[in-house]
Amino acid sequence: MTMQTPAAPAGDPVPGAPMTTYVYPFAQGDRSQQDLLGGKGANLAEMTRLGLPVPPGFTITTEACRHYLAHGHQPDGLHEQIGVNVRLLEQRTGQVLGDADNPMLVSVRSGARFSMPGMMDTVLNIGLNDRSVAGLAERAGNEHFAWDSYRRLIQMFGKTVLGLPGEEFEHALDRVKKQADVATDVELPVASLRDLVDAYKEIVRQDSGRDFPQDPQEQLMLAVEAVFHSWNTDRARLYRRQERISHDLGTAVNVQVMVFGNAGPGSGTGVAFTRDPGSGARGEYGDYLPDAQGEDVVAGIRNTLSLQVLQELDPTSYAQLTDIMNRLELHYRDLCDIEFTIERGRLWMLQTRVGKRTAAAAFRIAVQLVDEHVISMDEALLRVTGHQLSHLMFPAFVTDGDHRCIARGMNASPGAAVGRVVFDSKTAVSWAKGGQQVILVRRETNPDDLEGMVAAAGILTSRGGKTSHAAVVARGMGKTAVCGAEALDVDTKARRMTTEAGLVISEGDLLSIDGSTGEVFLGEVQVKDSPVVRYFEAGLEAAVEGVDEATAELVRAVDRLMRHADAKRRLRVRANADTPEDAARGRRMGAEGIGLLRTEHMFLGERRTYVERLILAESADERESALTALLPLQRKDFIRILEAMDGLPVTIRLIDPPLHEFLPDLTELSVRVAVAEAKGEHAEAELRLLQAVQRLHEQNPMLGLRGVRLGLVLPGLFALQVRAIAEAACFRQRMGGDPQAEIMIPLVGSIQELELVIDEASRVLREVGDANGCTLRFPIGTMIELPRAALTAGQIAGAAEFFSFGTNDLTQTTWGFSRDDVEAAFFSAYLEKGVFGVSPFESIDREGVGELVRIAVEQGRATRPGLHCGVCGEHGGDPDSVHFFEGVGLDYVSCSPFRVPVARLEAGRAVVERSVSGSDSR
Amino acid sequence: MTMQTPAAPAGDPVPGAPMTTYVYPFAQGDRSQQDLLGGKGANLAEMTRLGLPVPPGFTITTEACRHYLAHGHQPDGLHEQIGVNVRLLEQRTGQVLGDADNPMLVSVRSGARFSMPGMMDTVLNIGLNDRSVAGLAERAGNEHFAWDSYRRLIQMFGKTVLGLPGEEFEHALDRVKKQADVATDVELPVASLRDLVDAYKEIVRQDSGRDFPQDPQEQLMLAVEAVFHSWNTDRARLYRRQERISHDLGTAVNVQVMVFGNAGPGSGTGVAFTRDPGSGARGEYGDYLPDAQGEDVVAGIRNTLSLQVLQELDPTSYAQLTDIMNRLELHYRDLCDIEFTIERGRLWMLQTRVGKRTAAAAFRIAVQLVDEHVISMDEALLRVTGHQLSHLMFPAFVTDGDHRCIARGMNASPGAAVGRVVFDSKTAVSWAKGGQQVILVRRETNPDDLEGMVAAAGILTSRGGKTSHAAVVARGMGKTAVCGAEALDVDTKARRMTTEAGLVISEGDLLSIDGSTGEVFLGEVQVKDSPVVRYFEAGLEAAVEGVDEATAELVRAVDRLMRHADAKRRLRVRANADTPEDAARGRRMGAEGIGLLRTEHMFLGERRTYVERLILAESADERESALTALLPLQRKDFIRILEAMDGLPVTIRLIDPPLHEFLPDLTELSVRVAVAEAKGEHAEAELRLLQAVQRLHEQNPMLGLRGVRLGLVLPGLFALQVRAIAEAACFRQRMGGDPQAEIMIPLVGSIQELELVIDEASRVLREVGDANGCTLRFPIGTMIELPRAALTAGQIAGAAEFFSFGTNDLTQTTWGFSRDDVEAAFFSAYLEKGVFGVSPFESIDREGVGELVRIAVEQGRATRPGLHCGVCGEHGGDPDSVHFFEGVGLDYVSCSPFRVPVARLEAGRAVVERSVSGSDSR
Repeated sequence: MTMQTPAAPAGDPVPGAPMTTYVYPFAQGDRSQQDLLGGKGANLAEMTRLGLPVPPGFTITTEACRHYLAHGHQPDGLHEQIGVNVRLLEQRTGQVLGDADNPMLVSVRSGARFSMPGMMDTVLNIGLNDRSVAGLAERAGNEHFAWDSYRRLIQMFGKTVLGLPGEEFEHALDRVKKQADVATDVELPVASLRDLVDAYKEIVRQDSGRDFPQDPQEQLMLAVEAVFHSWNTDRARLYRRQERISHDLGTAVNVQVMVFGNAGPGSGTGVAFTRDPGSGARGEYGDYLPDAQGEDVVAGIRNTLSLQVLQELDPTSYAQLTDIMNRLELHYRDLCDIEFTIERGRLWMLQTRVGKRTAAAAFRIAVQLVDEHVISMDEALLRVTGHQLSHLMFPAFVTDGDHRCIARGMNASPGAAVGRVVFDSKTAVSWAKGGQQVILVRRETNPDDLEGMVAAAGILTSRGGKTSHAAVVARGMGKTAVCGAEALDVDTKARRMTTEAGLVISEGDLLSIDGSTGEVFLGEVQVKDSPVVRYFEAGLEAAVEGVDEATAELVRAVDRLMRHADAKRRLRVRANADTPEDAARGRRMGAEGIGLLRTEHMFLGERRTYVERLILAESADERESALTALLPLQRKDFIRILEAMDGLPVTIRLIDPPLHEFLPDLTELSVRVAVAEAKGEHAEAELRLLQAVQRLHEQNPMLGLRGVRLGLVLPGLFALQVRAIAEAACFRQRMGGDPQAEIMIPLVGSIQELELVIDEASRVLREVGDANGCTLRFPIGTMIELPRAALTAGQIAGAAEFFSFGTNDLTQTTWGFSRDDVEAAFFSAYLEKGVFGVSPFESIDREGVGELVRIAVEQGRATRPGLHCGVCGEHGGDPDSVHFFEGVGLDYVSCSPFRVPVARLEAGRAVVERSVSGSDSR
Repeated sequence: MTMQTPAAPAGDPVPGAPMTTYVYPFAQGDRSQQDLLGGKGANLAEMTRLGLPVPPGFTITTEACRHYLAHGHQPDGLHEQIGVNVRLLEQRTGQVLGDADNPMLVSVRSGARFSMPGMMDTVLNIGLNDRSVAGLAERAGNEHFAWDSYRRLIQMFGKTVLGLPGEEFEHALDRVKKQADVATDVELPVASLRDLVDAYKEIVRQDSGRDFPQDPQEQLMLAVEAVFHSWNTDRARLYRRQERISHDLGTAVNVQVMVFGNAGPGSGTGVAFTRDPGSGARGEYGDYLPDAQGEDVVAGIRNTLSLQVLQELDPTSYAQLTDIMNRLELHYRDLCDIEFTIERGRLWMLQTRVGKRTAAAAFRIAVQLVDEHVISMDEALLRVTGHQLSHLMFPAFVTDGDHRCIARGMNASPGAAVGRVVFDSKTAVSWAKGGQQVILVRRETNPDDLEGMVAAAGILTSRGGKTSHAAVVARGMGKTAVCGAEALDVDTKARRMTTEAGLVISEGDLLSIDGSTGEVFLGEVQVKDSPVVRYFEAGLEAAVEGVDEATAELVRAVDRLMRHADAKRRLRVRANADTPEDAARGRRMGAEGIGLLRTEHMFLGERRTYVERLILAESADERESALTALLPLQRKDFIRILEAMDGLPVTIRLIDPPLHEFLPDLTELSVRVAVAEAKGEHAEAELRLLQAVQRLHEQNPMLGLRGVRLGLVLPGLFALQVRAIAEAACFRQRMGGDPQAEIMIPLVGSIQELELVIDEASRVLREVGDANGCTLRFPIGTMIELPRAALTAGQIAGAAEFFSFGTNDLTQTTWGFSRDDVEAAFFSAYLEKGVFGVSPFESIDREGVGELVRIAVEQGRATRPGLHCGVCGEHGGDPDSVHFFEGVGLDYVSCSPFRVPVARLEAGRAVVERSVSGSDSR
């Protein structure tokens, strides 16, 4: 053999030759292979590897699916590999797929890397046909079981593989039950089941134009391809777009020998958790249904029994089950949920995975596992989330059983709200003005309902999900909402709604809605404050006093995990606070200073008159006198806040919003003046005010004369504020305090703006310092809230002593939409279409806004090494965003006082996560 | 000597030792040293090097100035170096500075790299004192000359070096003239001049608290330091901030031996150009004033004579002067301007530099120099600018001498406007509505005048400069404006204005203003169209037919330079055009396609009713029917434009503005409805319209539901437009045309939005193509007009087939201000404070907006190599911006048809400039 014409080496793609392994028997995989085998397949392999009783089977890889979707046909060799593996199963079981005498039956289940709605789920009993049904009956000694299994196969196959509508099968079943005069399918005589099989086959023939396939191999291959196909249903694609899951992953397919929980007495099926996923209590927890197949448990046709009953029915299987669950929990080192089946006294494990749990359970279980020496405190920190912590901090209803849950919807925006039902926005506004708490009930909301949503204590809709208009807007407002409570028939014209049970609720009736659970209660349910909030407000001892043991364990778990997070975190956490009360609250919540003190509110209320004078001033003297009147008021504000945050930094933002925000609305005022004129009345003062409002009116106030621009154009305004801050700090120094003010300039776009303001501010600081004989060394820094500020951060850092990212405004300008206008107008559509996975105002847009933050930090520190950088938009309290800010190296985050604990927890988690993964959280 | 303890090497900084050369005699420098010697110093050195008769002198470097400003004192050695150089001058002249018998006098002049207002200019006659004045008188044989020179020294020294107010000197002069009963200072007897010197010395003593220094060295050193100081006057700093000139450059100081044009008959002084800087005609051009010093020419005290008169008076000096001017022009290879003095028949050159010129002169001279084999065509292209070309394209007044120029202001916004004078905005609006052309006259404008400015044909103010509110807003609107015509006394209450000469102009009088020259004429001056526009519109032959020779030469020069630019340029130039007429015009102007076709106007006029139906639609059917009605109209629009641009690309932007722009204004409508209600009238239709307007109302429409967002939220709108484009293209194909449509999606922020629209558009294109049996292969691309689009351009290029930068919107979002709101509100303040050098809407902000463009091009092409990129904001026609776009590698720029020639010229210049400098223009 010469080197010139070598034979094809082993790896070369020769058509027809099976080069790639597309099929893995369960015994060959493990749980690390979730990308290739999907979640379900990898866990089945893991259990098999552990020697647990798993019915044998194999997994067809996601790679095979990807090939199928890319080329429209199965990859070469897949058919053969499936055949080989089926024969291996046959050898193992001593049965033959679809054999007339001793048939092997298999199930086909999808199993992607991430669980995903919209994909084909399961086809059971593959291998049954007109001949093997008899063999199964004989082997099981149970004709009813065999024919029932057969009719189930045709029904599932027809619906999920052939895509036929399910109703016809349901109707046929109803007809047969009627004929046999029985109430449930379990009671159907065998003859009726045979008739039903005939009827089902006829449905398949009529609707699909083909006979139900009698060839078991064909059944199997069609089911496998149906799973592949289902990866690309509209619903699955939409879900992936929303969740930012790649369309390229594909799904795996699991083929597994059937075991039967419906094989008569001594058989059954169940689901179980290694601990209580609701409360977090120790000990196994689950449901068992004798003589049933898995789908019956889910369908809720019969009432399930607790695992304790199984212990009495079948102590051997029970002992084996609990032993396995203990092994699984130790092996997975976490709460597991499992599915199992007992076939004639023999236990089989059908699925396991790390189990979902409530927020309270997450905290309790994490700390339990630490105390059981299963995981470390670092790992425990990764097992809880800021979202869970914030859920624990919402007020909740006291569920005393006295109140009827009349409907259930999506838990669209958390919290607990009580109020009188109203059916339109106008009524909501008017009742709320009259001092009533109201719940706004609509079929669905649209932008017209905005005012009513603002006025209401809570929002309830009968249509739409978590991305509906109502849900998006309510979350944006932080308002309790339950959406898509479909059992409610809302009639806004008649001003009433009717429950499924026929209960009629009229306008004015009291209703309580739980936005954390989606429950709707009739009447007023008592709201209890969160023990976790009490812990933050009053400390551990006070919080555990007089509460039940479960609550005490929860609070102690929160305490231990918070302390661990604080020890771990690098990011400092500050609060956004405008009043001494908020400052004090932030401090109790663990804030290490104020990251954003907005000075706008200090110009509201009774002080509006001075602002009006300022705006209407026709001479420098008039303006000066208005400013002079404001000075002592501003000074008092700052003294009180610097006192509340004594010794900690207080970042004071100079006034940001446009002046006309302090004046009446242009349209309202225009109408008032025009109507007065039409009536022949004279309204000189109003007319003058109108002229000022017209002069200051802007098409796009968000993009107008505000922030540093206002400070540069309106003489004396910024100087007044700086003077008030300086005098307040001097006063606090004289009183023995330690005022740590920082002055922050808003809406800077260029170094030139900043330099001009710093010149003026420095002059005022010197003057006040000299006059009061005190040393004022305040850092003067800037908000980075415009793309241009981020892009020229290298220049700006030449003047700015610190950066604070205003990610709300930065999101608005980077995306070019204003929160006020778009949340109502198109955010729900965008979330539904998957343009967003989550609102960029809720969680920072890493690729766009985040990129600007990254650029600014990098360039700013290149100019001024060690430049102090923080964030003061609400993103500072968003869990995902906190991880991002940790990743780009900010020094602190600042958020509303209530979110401070969440930020502390996530800041700690982010450090641990990075040390584990070597990268950030995504 | 050992190696261990070496003597200090020559270069080491030993205190007191003059290591750095701070003073250069003219004979040692050359014109390449402008950074070190300033412009004036380098050119004096150059002339000295050429052997021209330059009075000897030396330059103190900018480095000395920088040292002085940084440390507050002169650098070590400077004093000594000045002393050495003064002694060299004394040796050369045989005179001694300030000597009683044979005094040498010197001038001190500032001379920075860039000429700059606000800096100290000149002190002449340094060296005169109570003793040397007699020596000068004796040497010159002219006592009057000597004492007049002395009093000038004290006056200039007092004003510019000691900073005393100038009026007291003026008053003293007036008093003396009165006493002597003479009209001009030339007539003053010597005794009066002696009295005047005494009076001046007394003013210095009184106002500065010190005696006028008699020591010539002290005079010199104080003058030098005064020049250093003047670098940092507020006015100089502001000018530098506005022009983006570094504060770190410093100024040089020139010290030069005095020569005297006021030394009696045979003496004189003048300024001259090597060609006519106004028209560009060949031949020397200048002014001469016998028996005078330089300042007298500028002050305009006596009427100057033409150079031709000098030829008669002093043919030798004239011949020598023209010979020198020829040498200078050949040496500098460009038009030069010079200052000269003749002292008793001897010619001295005092200054030269490349001369400023009008736009017409620039074009003519550049081509003349090519024809004279002085420069190449490439160099000629660098001698003209797009700004000059655009000046040549504005209509101009026919200056026939029949009309009186009654005042002159700043040429704030070019053009020629004629109309009736009005003095307030309201009148402007009402007269304009009545069909009158009006000129709005104000002392200065403010945002309240906006409506009137929109309505007026031109704007005239008596206060403020090129950065005043009126100037900024007028330029933004492209409206003719003359600002700061200070000779006009405007009385808006009396509705009239008065000129300096006492002429009264009342409301309604006809006025003509020239925004290109700043001239104001009484009455209606005839406006003539630009011959350069005629050249572009009708071609060279038509443009030179029947015009005078100067105009013909100009047009031919433009033609040759345009053709050269076209041959050189890499950037393609397209037009922004919405109508077939604009498209055709753009094509005549040289556009190579349409870069931006806005489809908004296609929904205006009579079609508004369909849009209203669309907006008010309460069902899908109603919406569908409105869309269906629009289809044939849109199709016809596209057919006509594709026909006008047959064979060239036409980029069609799908509808961008928010829907409510098609509805009435909220406030106006609210007032109308409220007033109707107050009067008890019923206005059902208006009320329904109001509800729609309220529903669609946005706080910040610029940041609201528009562009791609509207397309995704309003079903069928984009599909309608794509269908109309597709059907139009099919029609044009059937007619044998070559339609080259490109579909552009506006306001995209993320790849997800773009993908959704492209899916829909592709479907429509397929459908229409299939139905019409034609192949539609349109590129579908996106505007890049949001920071997020630029930041995620790498992703977006995965779907977009081209990028078009919408730099108007990108500027708005990057800076976070809307053009509508801020040009009026604070741009003039920002320009005055130097935050901007130029409005970022006029010329692209390279550091912020430009950085996003750079990022997007780079990332887009990384994903899609060769990605076609253009710009379609008005920056596409701005000269400086064109150079930037050439630099970042765009493929084309698109601008309004009128600016297409400017863009062509600058695109060519940018290529030549880069090949010369190896970098871009800044």
